[in-house]
Amino acid sequence: MARLAVNYYSQVLGMDRMMQVILPELSDHMPAWTAADLQDIPVLYLLHGMSGDQDVWSRRTSIERLVRQTPIAIVMPSTDLAWYTNTTYGMAYLDALLDELPKKVATLFPQISQKREKNFVAGLSMGGYGAFKMAFSNDQFSYAASLSGALMGDPNFPNRTTWQNDAYWEGIFGDMSQVLGSKNDVITLAKQQVASQKHLPKLYAWIGEQDYLYQNNLTTLPQIAALGYDLTFETSPGTHDWYYWDKQIERVLEWLPIAYQPEERLA
Amino acid sequence: MARLAVNYYSQVLGMDRMMQVILPELSDHMPAWTAADLQDIPVLYLLHGMSGDQDVWSRRTSIERLVRQTPIAIVMPSTDLAWYTNTTYGMAYLDALLDELPKKVATLFPQISQKREKNFVAGLSMGGYGAFKMAFSNDQFSYAASLSGALMGDPNFPNRTTWQNDAYWEGIFGDMSQVLGSKNDVITLAKQQVASQKHLPKLYAWIGEQDYLYQNNLTTLPQIAALGYDLTFETSPGTHDWYYWDKQIERVLEWLPIAYQPEERLA
Amino acid sequence: MARLAVNYYSQVLGMDRMMQVILPELSDHMPAWTAADLQDIPVLYLLHGMSGDQDVWSRRTSIERLVRQTPIAIVMPSTDLAWYTNTTYGMAYLDALLDELPKKVATLFPQISQKREKNFVAGLSMGGYGAFKMAFSNDQFSYAASLSGALMGDPNFPNRTTWQNDAYWEGIFGDMSQVLGSKNDVITLAKQQVASQKHLPKLYAWIGEQDYLYQNNLTTLPQIAALGYDLTFETSPGTHDWYYWDKQIERVLEWLPIAYQPEERLA
Amino acid sequence: MARLAVNYYSQVLGMDRMMQVILPELSDHMPAWTAADLQDIPVLYLLHGMSGDQDVWSRRTSIERLVRQTPIAIVMPSTDLAWYTNTTYGMAYLDALLDELPKKVATLFPQISQKREKNFVAGLSMGGYGAFKMAFSNDQFSYAASLSGALMGDPNFPNRTTWQNDAYWEGIFGDMSQVLGSKNDVITLAKQQVASQKHLPKLYAWIGEQDYLYQNNLTTLPQIAALGYDLTFETSPGTHDWYYWDKQIERVLEWLPIAYQPEERLA
Repeated sequence: MARLAVNYYSQVLGMDRMMQVILPELSDHMPAWTAADLQDIPVLYLLHGMSGDQDVWSRRTSIERLVRQTPIAIVMPSTDLAWYTNTTYGMAYLDALLDELPKKVATLFPQISQKREKNFVAGLSMGGYGAFKMAFSNDQFSYAASLSGALMGDPNFPNRTTWQNDAYWEGIFGDMSQVLGSKNDVITLAKQQVASQKHLPKLYAWIGEQDYLYQNNLTTLPQIAALGYDLTFETSPGTHDWYYWDKQIERVLEWLPIAYQPEERLA
Repeated sequence: MARLAVNYYSQVLGMDRMMQVILPELSDHMPAWTAADLQDIPVLYLLHGMSGDQDVWSRRTSIERLVRQTPIAIVMPSTDLAWYTNTTYGMAYLDALLDELPKKVATLFPQISQKREKNFVAGLSMGGYGAFKMAFSNDQFSYAASLSGALMGDPNFPNRTTWQNDAYWEGIFGDMSQVLGSKNDVITLAKQQVASQKHLPKLYAWIGEQDYLYQNNLTTLPQIAALGYDLTFETSPGTHDWYYWDKQIERVLEWLPIAYQPEERLA
Repeated sequence: MARLAVNYYSQVLGMDRMMQVILPELSDHMPAWTAADLQDIPVLYLLHGMSGDQDVWSRRTSIERLVRQTPIAIVMPSTDLAWYTNTTYGMAYLDALLDELPKKVATLFPQISQKREKNFVAGLSMGGYGAFKMAFSNDQFSYAASLSGALMGDPNFPNRTTWQNDAYWEGIFGDMSQVLGSKNDVITLAKQQVASQKHLPKLYAWIGEQDYLYQNNLTTLPQIAALGYDLTFETSPGTHDWYYWDKQIERVLEWLPIAYQPEERLA
Repeated sequence: MARLAVNYYSQVLGMDRMMQVILPELSDHMPAWTAADLQDIPVLYLLHGMSGDQDVWSRRTSIERLVRQTPIAIVMPSTDLAWYTNTTYGMAYLDALLDELPKKVATLFPQISQKREKNFVAGLSMGGYGAFKMAFSNDQFSYAASLSGALMGDPNFPNRTTWQNDAYWEGIFGDMSQVLGSKNDVITLAKQQVASQKHLPKLYAWIGEQDYLYQNNLTTLPQIAALGYDLTFETSPGTHDWYYWDKQIERVLEWLPIAYQPEERLA
């Protein structure tokens, strides 16, 4: 796989942005691949959590090693700390990632598929929220996965109490007491998607049983499933940390319709 | 010179950040330099403008070539689009760059001087504002330079009309009608610095005579000089564009107390 | 323009390699560009000299700023210190850059043209030699430019005396007394190209009048022109240094058939 | 931890080189660390194998995540494909990494310890050979680790038969029939180190039981131990692949005298 650190200009945000991209390439490392295999490539948009950026998945996990035998593109963008949201302060991160980024990707990497059935989104914590939010907002994505998602369909949203800065939260979401039911609430977005009779994305969620977001996930995910989504929900011992995400991102790869080719592991 | 792309964690902003750093190194390229020359190195913090980031100075100018014969460190951080300001939405970019970044630099690069007489700051457009703002906010910097600075000591601040998004401006600065006289107004900051009888930084400013900020600079800079600052103010034909900043950053290097060693130019 | 730092795997060299790539993108920076303008994009392969690598053009010049208004891709690969040559020690840098790299580029960036009339190559010093060598080796390139080229069509090749390490030179080229007339001699390559009646690339060369390679260029270039090549040869005051290459790469851009759009310069 | 992509100039090799560096930093991520903890920091030089470069450890493993709670610097340089060897073709990679790089590190990162007891080296495959070679060549390193090392103390050196290119091997090592007993043979280097009565480094080695280098390690390592080295030698099921190195590098961290702080793992 080739790895690309990309500086691009986001007209929506009005500033230079970075993304990290992993792209399949032809070589004797994967001798069975042909040029045809590297056209119309499926793509996973992989979203970071709070405190991360476009590089954090590659710095804290083995994501590139995991996918090296599977012809898939991984696109890792950044939302800064802005929750994949059109903020109240005029920075439209959701538009930048949901609408502009796929067009940017189409321009820079025409070999990446624009088809719904080959476009997937996943993320961790804030990025789990982002993945579901993006998947519910339109019908671009056929699969969406949340790892330790900060899903915010729960009035007792726990991130807000661990990260105490009201100005910050209101800057992103506006009046926090009004988030439920709004365009920033994943359950509301899910309901709207169901009502509009678009395709529904398949969903995967994992949360560690010792995670401070465990109850949030237990409360929120069944509500989403009850709307008619095909949701695979898994839990296992774990906290809100990278060791688990390195493990669980492989579960996402196994779950995606990409003929994931795992590496040999003798022990 | 060595060039370093640095990912670091900002506790103030609560997220991973990037800076680009240029550091002198010993080699036959500069045979006269000794190990002693590379201790307590002077440093120029070089700030980007709107739409830029930590990489933009290196992408659009020859800054690294210009300084290659001068033992100085260049530190290029990013404020995103947030004006080197503690925003109303709880993201304290000014604290992150004025207070936290020098400590971060001291930890990662102990050879960079922490002395006021060896700490300088410069920037373009929004970064010219940032450079003066940071230099006026405490006494860390002995020299500060603004190129095409969006100085915001003028009620008819032109950037606001060319970049129309009230939510954005108010997110950064709060009520825009109250900026003059506030902690985000460079003239007010300058007055406070004079009043507190700290050392005053030496100042340099350049603006192109066809720049849409030309009148802003003509109005603002004399007010600052009148407070007692040693200001070198220069203008020449030019607009608000990178060609001029590639030229003018060399004027800044000549002006700084760093024994700038220009390259040979036969034609 | 987007800027990409690319890690890819070279099967020919058997190792991970890096290239830096500049790609046009759609945004309000260039509002007149359409999606059609960013297909079948012309490409300039831009080669470094001794001591450089894939990043050195961007670190020492303003290349990205110069091309930002022109829909062209710039691909900057690395030959390490190996002269764009299939070395005697089994590292086939010429094959890697002449044959494998364009295929790699076609895979990763399908929008870059594979057409001869849109493929160009230029370089400085060792890279000037590399540019002519690659252009003479087959008919992939329609234009080739040498800046301060170490052209090696001269028995008194000056680089060898300034960089004294016989094992190094023989490692690259074999018996140095046999280089003239060999596949590593640009005049010999030029003769072979003429004899094979392929298309001949248009050539540009510049050398500084104070460059230690000046006589080498004065001796070599007329021999190439005499073979029937359309050569534009320019000299001006200058030595073997980056200030001149930052200037002269713009001459190359003006000379290429790319409708180069220079920036405004009021002074 | 901060992560730095460093371009530096190697005078020994005569070209720009890259290294990737991980450095501890102060933040609320590691609230117990003090400024004193980040002085005189222990350092692990971590070496890549054939086909890799300075980035490959971070791309294929979770090395940065593993060390994030331990105050240690990781320096990942590149030898290209040259076996950490002063090649016959005049490129002195061993000198560049053994002698020049620590001085470079001392200049750029004065906080990294220069003390033998805090300098360690490890690598995989070709880098396992490099780690032992560097550790045996002088007394800079107190600990050295080889993972799946291509140790080359065996006349039936297997890499040579899997990578068939005599010119390549002779370019690196000269006459391959003369390597045993030469300065490129780790057993010979070990004997010389013992004879010179320097400190001996502590050694760790791991090899997968299905690795094509398994017999090579079984043959070579006891000869080294018999010389008086304190060698910890472990094997387990595994082939010559990154999954195992991601696992085994943690064993190295546990073995080093660095108070390695492993992450929590509930499952």
